[in-house]
Parts: sequence; C-alpha cells; structure tokens
Amino acid sequence: MNKSRLEAFSDGVLAIIITIMILEIKAPEDDSFESLQHLIPVFLSYVLSFIYLGIYWSNHHHMLQLVKKVNGSILWSNLFLLFWLSLIPFATSWIGEHHFSAVPMSIYGFILLMCAVAYRLLQNKLIQLHGKESLLQHAIKTDKKGNISLLCYASAIPLAFVSPWISGLLYIAVALIWIVPDTRIENQINKKL
Amino acid sequence: MNKSRLEAFSDGVLAIIITIMILEIKAPEDDSFESLQHLIPVFLSYVLSFIYLGIYWSNHHHMLQLVKKVNGSILWSNLFLLFWLSLIPFATSWIGEHHFSAVPMSIYGFILLMCAVAYRLLQNKLIQLHGKESLLQHAIKTDKKGNISLLCYASAIPLAFVSPWISGLLYIAVALIWIVPDTRIENQINKKL
Amino acid sequence: MNKSRLEAFSDGVLAIIITIMILEIKAPEDDSFESLQHLIPVFLSYVLSFIYLGIYWSNHHHMLQLVKKVNGSILWSNLFLLFWLSLIPFATSWIGEHHFSAVPMSIYGFILLMCAVAYRLLQNKLIQLHGKESLLQHAIKTDKKGNISLLCYASAIPLAFVSPWISGLLYIAVALIWIVPDTRIENQINKKL
Amino acid sequence: MNKSRLEAFSDGVLAIIITIMILEIKAPEDDSFESLQHLIPVFLSYVLSFIYLGIYWSNHHHMLQLVKKVNGSILWSNLFLLFWLSLIPFATSWIGEHHFSAVPMSIYGFILLMCAVAYRLLQNKLIQLHGKESLLQHAIKTDKKGNISLLCYASAIPLAFVSPWISGLLYIAVALIWIVPDTRIENQINKKL
Repeated sequence: MNKSRLEAFSDGVLAIIITIMILEIKAPEDDSFESLQHLIPVFLSYVLSFIYLGIYWSNHHHMLQLVKKVNGSILWSNLFLLFWLSLIPFATSWIGEHHFSAVPMSIYGFILLMCAVAYRLLQNKLIQLHGKESLLQHAIKTDKKGNISLLCYASAIPLAFVSPWISGLLYIAVALIWIVPDTRIENQINKKL
Repeated sequence: MNKSRLEAFSDGVLAIIITIMILEIKAPEDDSFESLQHLIPVFLSYVLSFIYLGIYWSNHHHMLQLVKKVNGSILWSNLFLLFWLSLIPFATSWIGEHHFSAVPMSIYGFILLMCAVAYRLLQNKLIQLHGKESLLQHAIKTDKKGNISLLCYASAIPLAFVSPWISGLLYIAVALIWIVPDTRIENQINKKL
Repeated sequence: MNKSRLEAFSDGVLAIIITIMILEIKAPEDDSFESLQHLIPVFLSYVLSFIYLGIYWSNHHHMLQLVKKVNGSILWSNLFLLFWLSLIPFATSWIGEHHFSAVPMSIYGFILLMCAVAYRLLQNKLIQLHGKESLLQHAIKTDKKGNISLLCYASAIPLAFVSPWISGLLYIAVALIWIVPDTRIENQINKKL
Repeated sequence: MNKSRLEAFSDGVLAIIITIMILEIKAPEDDSFESLQHLIPVFLSYVLSFIYLGIYWSNHHHMLQLVKKVNGSILWSNLFLLFWLSLIPFATSWIGEHHFSAVPMSIYGFILLMCAVAYRLLQNKLIQLHGKESLLQHAIKTDKKGNISLLCYASAIPLAFVSPWISGLLYIAVALIWIVPDTRIENQINKKL
C-alpha cells in the first residue's frame, strides 16, 4: 500500500486544524487598541498551538520520508493521532478565554500527552513494519526527546493545580526542544542519498 | 481519465468534514471540570462520527488502490457519496446536543444508510468499468460486511423510536466490524505486487 | 510552468467551499421532526449549490486534463473563478434562510453568472495558450452549453422579480444540462489515448 | 528532503485561509438590497485580502518552481509565513466591520508587513541553500518590488492615524504592483526549459 495518500490526507487534516483555530479569534467589537489587548491571551494560546501543530507536521513529514510502505493498522494509528490533534483547537480556545487557568491548562496537557502517545504508537508501528535495521529505527534510536516530552506533559497535568504557570512553562520548554527539526532523521535522509 | 485528482478532491473533502466537526464543540463558558462533563455527549458523538469518517476514508483509499481508471459517471457517484458524508457533522451535533434522543438518532441512521448506499453505488460502478474479473470484484466478493451494515442502519432508523440506545449499539457494532481495515482488499493488493 | 499545483490549489479551495456550506446548517434547537422541516429550504439550497460546485469541479477537472501548461495570466483567471465560486456559500445561506425570495434569488443568479463568465475567461485563456488546433478547442467547439447557461443566468436575474420560482427553475435546468459530464472533452481524452 | 509535501501543505493552508474569510460574511437578516449595501465594506475588505492571498500563493508557487530542495530551517520559515498569513482573515473582518477605521487599518498593515518580512526570510533561506548562482537568485536580483512593498506597509502603519484612506491606497498600490505575476521568475523558468 503506498504512503502518498496517507501523507495527503494528513496534510489536509493538519492544514485545517492549524487554520480553523483562527476562526475562534473573533474581530473585537470596537476598533480601539484596548479591545485588541483583551485578545492577548487568545493570541498567545494560538501561537503556542500553532507551534505545536507545526512541530507535529514537521516531524510527521520527516518520519514518513524514511518510510516505504504502510498498512491498515498504520492508517488507523495515523487517524488516532489526527483525532487527538483535532482536539487542540478546542483546548486552545479554552485556555485562551480563561487566561490559562488551572483546569483548562491541565486538560490542554492531557490532550498534548495523548497526541504524544499516539505519535509514539504510530512510530512504533512503522518501525515494526520496516524492521529493527530500518533507517527509521536508526534515526529514532532511544527517542530521548520523545521520552522527555511524555514526562513533561504527564507532570504538567497535576502541576497545573499547583500553578498553571508551571504547566505553561513546561509546554513552552517541550516546544523549544522540538522546534529544532529532527536532525537525527535529517542525517539519515542525507546518508541515504 | 486518471484517478489521482478524484482521490485528491475526496481526501480534501473528507479531511474538512472530519475536522469541522470540532468547530461545533465550543469551549465551555467557565473553566471547571463540571462544565467539561456537560460536553460528554457531544464528545461521544464526535468520536463515533470521527471513526465512521475514518472508516470511509480508509475503505475509499483501499478501493481506489485497486482501480485503474474513472469516468464521468464515477465522478458523480463519488460526489453523491461526499454529499451524504457532508451531512454527518450536522447529524453529529444534533445527536450530541440532544443526548442521543430518538428523532436525531433515527436521522443519524438515515444519513449513515444513505452514505452506505452511495458507497455501494460507487463500488458497483467501479466494478462495472473494470469488469467481473477485476481485482476489485475479487476483493469484494459478495460484500457480506456491506450487506450487514445496510441491514443494521435500516433497522436502527425505526428502532430509535423503541429505544435510541438500540440504534446507538447498532451504530457502534457496525463501526466495529469495519474498523478492521478491509483485509480482503489488502490481500488482493499484496497478491498484485 | 506546470499545472499540478494549480489543480491541487483549486481542488483544495473547491473542497473547502463545498464543505463549509454545511457549517451554515445549524442543528435544530429541539429534537422533533417539525424542527427538521423548518430546515427544508436550507437543505434544498445546499443541494442545489453542492451540485453546482460539483459541476464546476468536474468540468474544471476535465478541462485541465486537456491542458499541458499554464502561465501567470491563467493563474489569475483561475483565482478570479475561485473568487466568484467562494461567494456561493454566502448566497446559498441567504436564499435558504429567506425561502428563495426575490432579491436573494436574483443575487444568487448574479453570482452564478459571474462564475460562468470567469470560467469562460479561463477557458479562452487556455485555448489561446494551446492554439486553435489544440484538443481543448476541438472539445469545446462552439460551447453551446456554456452559451445557454450564460443566457439562463442573465435572464434569471431580472425574472426573479417577476417570480423567484422562474429563476429557481432556470437554475435547476442549467444544472441538469451540465450534470452530464462534458462528453465532448471525454471523447477527446479517449481519442488522445 | 523533497519539496512536494511543503507545497501540498502550503497549498492546503492557503486554500483554507482564502476560503474561511467568506464564513465571516454572514447572510443578511432580511432579504432587501439595502441589507446587502451594509455589507459593502465587508465585501471590499474580502476582495482586497483575497487578492493579497492570491498574490502570495502565486509568488510562492513561482518561487518554489525554481527550488530543488528544502531543509528543516526552510520548513519553519514557511510555517512562520503561514502563521502571519493566517492572521489576515482576522484583520480582514476587523477592517470590514469598522469601515476601515484607523486602528484596524494600522493593524492590517502590520500583519501585511510581517507577511512580507516572513516571505523575504523564506526567500533568503532558499537562496542561501541553493547558492548565489542559483536560478532563484538570478530571478530575484535586488528584489525591488519586495523593497517597495516593505516600505509601503511600514509607512501605512503610522499613516493610518493621519487618514486610514492613505493606508488603504497604499495597500491597493502594493497589490497592483504584485498582481502582475513575477515575470522575472517566469523568465528564468522559460530559460531553464
């Protein structure tokens, strides 16, 4: 089964998820700078989620570059990932409208955790199909970044009730460690060529 | 006429249908766990429809893998399928907002029935074009799964008025028999290679 | 300049236009059959516009099959077509919500007219680039269907003020003459192969 | 790393951005021509932004035609561009609803400025990767058009407070100098063939 339609569908869904978030940011009722200031938390949550979705798109893109084939089980793992990613716009407008308060920040972390779990699942299924000696397995190695992210999300969920700012900092920290594109995979691609 | 633009357009429409449903789930007014609990039926209906649309995308993907060409009549059968699929977000928010009550559950079943009829129609037209000896015909055989689904949807429409939960269970049952990707087709593809 | 990205972008825009119309059909406030009946005009307008957009997608698909190259001026003609098509969801919800009354029906016709004019413009530019002896020119010939459509739309705009039903019948009539995919072009494609 | 998925994703996001703006134009409450007249500023702002997004899509399309490869840093520059472009629908509905008043017009200019800066950044990174002797570098030369645009946007931001109409004229002027597709690049493509 070829991977190109899987990529096309994922690109479509990710493009829509990343873009519909802007529909939640309504133009202010009046035309003053003050009315724009009220939107600052909504904008900040948009920026954070835009970056996260950009990271997922970029990593998904990198991962599938190293992949030759897909099967039915991989289609469903990919849909499972897209499902959790599709909840990000919901959580984004919730944290933005409530100025990053505890419950929404905790739920935001839960959704990020599930996205990361789903991504790991998809990665494992792809490695399983391509073998321990595959380029993907070499590129991922022990997936240290992935493990740190899972740990951060899992901590941020309860820590939001200590202070939502701790969770916020953890989400920003994880974004920063990923924003550098996955050079492990990029190196493998270059080796392959 | 080549099939790639048909696939691209269908992927686009399916990606949008699957994603706009999340726009119907508005962030709660307040930031408590209780407010999230009120959204449970809406989330459950989202999960069910997401799975159904995932099944359609996956089966559509599998079916078109075995297909070599399309014609004008197939373009329109495909649009007829996309039309009925496009009504799923409407029915989804209706059943969610009214906690799976009788009339919405019955209409949800009617839309699923029409989707299944439209899919069968598209499948028949593809077989007609490719011949009785085609890979697709071998893969589908008697289409037992398809027949059971049609029967379940047709029963669920009136049974919603006995109890909407019977319909709900039927919808879940049909989803479960399809969630396993169509191994008949996957086998044909593997044989072909 | 190659045509594939033009096709991909047009597919994307058309897929979104055709799908966002469903966002305008809100789930009814209560869960009765009566509440569904109130949505009948909205549904009918959705069906009509879905068919029109399907026709445009199908004809656009057929036309670009016969085309080898595009240039900057064709990119802009295509965007001009997409602009007018993007106004269809607006006019669709207007005619649906006001039960096909005169002014909205007239404006709906104006938008359809501009779509047809834009399509003709794009067609002319493609023929100009590919020459009088091109497959496209042979397929289109005198474009009788196109001329009849332009005439019907132009008549429907003022006739809506005599009776909106005349306009409605004209829109349905034009859809019917197009719903048969453009066999002229299909014949040319078959000859080419 | 190949550029096709970057193009596909960008096409998807641009197609959605350009199309969701129409969701902001709600069908009027009543069915008179007067109600349509109230929408004129909203329509004008839609037309302007549609043209700007068309320009970005067209230039992006041209630029990537001359490009052979992409890397992680280019993926992120592209996402940075898409981020700023995604804010255009927000600013569009704001200027439309407030009849092009000073603050919204100034913010609209700021977003256009950031889009232009992000585009320049992406262009520079692509040139850097492909070398000073690349087709892209030859096509761009000193990027006079790009410099004039940056200057116009930067002037329009404060000038909106003198008169929003000056800013409006500057936005229209910049659109006009770009609406002619980038013949420099088109020439390079023709030379290459």
